[in-house]
Amino acid sequence: MTIRVYYEDTDSLGIVYHANYLKYIERARSEAFFAIGRKPENADRYYVVRSMNIRFIKSAKLGDILEVRSRLKALRAASFWLEQELWLDNTIIFSAEVEIASMRDSKPAKITDSAKSFLRDAFGDA
Amino acid sequence: MTIRVYYEDTDSLGIVYHANYLKYIERARSEAFFAIGRKPENADRYYVVRSMNIRFIKSAKLGDILEVRSRLKALRAASFWLEQELWLDNTIIFSAEVEIASMRDSKPAKITDSAKSFLRDAFGDA
Amino acid sequence: MTIRVYYEDTDSLGIVYHANYLKYIERARSEAFFAIGRKPENADRYYVVRSMNIRFIKSAKLGDILEVRSRLKALRAASFWLEQELWLDNTIIFSAEVEIASMRDSKPAKITDSAKSFLRDAFGDA
Amino acid sequence: MTIRVYYEDTDSLGIVYHANYLKYIERARSEAFFAIGRKPENADRYYVVRSMNIRFIKSAKLGDILEVRSRLKALRAASFWLEQELWLDNTIIFSAEVEIASMRDSKPAKITDSAKSFLRDAFGDA
Repeated sequence: MTIRVYYEDTDSLGIVYHANYLKYIERARSEAFFAIGRKPENADRYYVVRSMNIRFIKSAKLGDILEVRSRLKALRAASFWLEQELWLDNTIIFSAEVEIASMRDSKPAKITDSAKSFLRDAFGDA
Repeated sequence: MTIRVYYEDTDSLGIVYHANYLKYIERARSEAFFAIGRKPENADRYYVVRSMNIRFIKSAKLGDILEVRSRLKALRAASFWLEQELWLDNTIIFSAEVEIASMRDSKPAKITDSAKSFLRDAFGDA
Repeated sequence: MTIRVYYEDTDSLGIVYHANYLKYIERARSEAFFAIGRKPENADRYYVVRSMNIRFIKSAKLGDILEVRSRLKALRAASFWLEQELWLDNTIIFSAEVEIASMRDSKPAKITDSAKSFLRDAFGDA
Repeated sequence: MTIRVYYEDTDSLGIVYHANYLKYIERARSEAFFAIGRKPENADRYYVVRSMNIRFIKSAKLGDILEVRSRLKALRAASFWLEQELWLDNTIIFSAEVEIASMRDSKPAKITDSAKSFLRDAFGDA
């Protein structure tokens, strides 16, 4: 998946505002769900980001086209970890370990077997 | 009401990204509701912007403190018009005429008498 | 050009936050420049939105794919007008008349002949 | 410093979109500079976020007023670490360790003695 950098993403330092990289990798997560014809939320189930470890390595600028690479790192009963990176040409510019919790009614909820299959298919076998 | 311009609001031209001025005036509309201890949405009623006529007069920059001025221009059965401006020091930099529709279940809904009173109190007698 | 609606674009009413439609049509304007290998800003020249007349017709939701349609309406010495629309399937959901000024050093600047040719090529003959 | 949650900050799950918490804590960093009459960038010097470790603990909703608490954790030659938290009433909802690099011309640059004094004054003695 590729992401174009627009004016809305940049700030007055002339580079992408740091928080917007989190939007980019979230888009890739959502697209994995859209690709199978559904939304990340489903009836009463939804996902929230619980924690992230982020490295801002280089900056992107207006017009850049970034590639998002995502990989499943760990799959637990009610949460999973993704490793997500942004690449500009052949250079990594951003990386994040993202912990995502499965939720129902504001409480952690077990990830169903079918959801586990989907996550493995979409992001790799953890 | 005053608004501070942060990095998130600016773009690589060094000025506030044009769409963000719409956020600023929306904050002022919401604050009018918060001031009486409620949210703009209420049970099954909510408001949506139906149309806007906007003039971008001057630019704001990082760190600027803008003043929002709002005035009720017209109050109809199921909609109303606000005139909203942004001022930097003694200079107007943005003005918008904003048409807002009262909605229920995705359909226009009459504005109740108590809502009309609130709108007149909050934004002036139209 | 098509635009996917992500979580970042929606608000707690479950629909796209109104100001974000302005981002979508700005992306289409920038893409017209990227398509010829340049940015909307060029040396000391840049463009700013001077005014907009907007109609919010219907709402878009998470996962929707919107089509942007842009057309040059008027081309003047130092500014031009675009008509830009967002379509969801075969329904128009947003339309805007957008007045854009050519600028140099914070002052209006004539649009060069080559820029006029570009605008006609990219957005239609006005 | 307190932050009000507006529609622009929320998403269709009815809570603040996760990346927007990063904007909130950045506002607090910028306000520390504004408080002494300057901007975070200064002539040829500026700051960028290099890494973050984030925990999203609870969610905020439309109308909530969040308190930002910031504390200097470590101060090095060309970078520093802040601990930044968001509190809703008496509950912590978000915490981040933020590594910030001092930059000049896209390269790390030593933090001057006066900048170190400022950081200690603004965020506590590290």
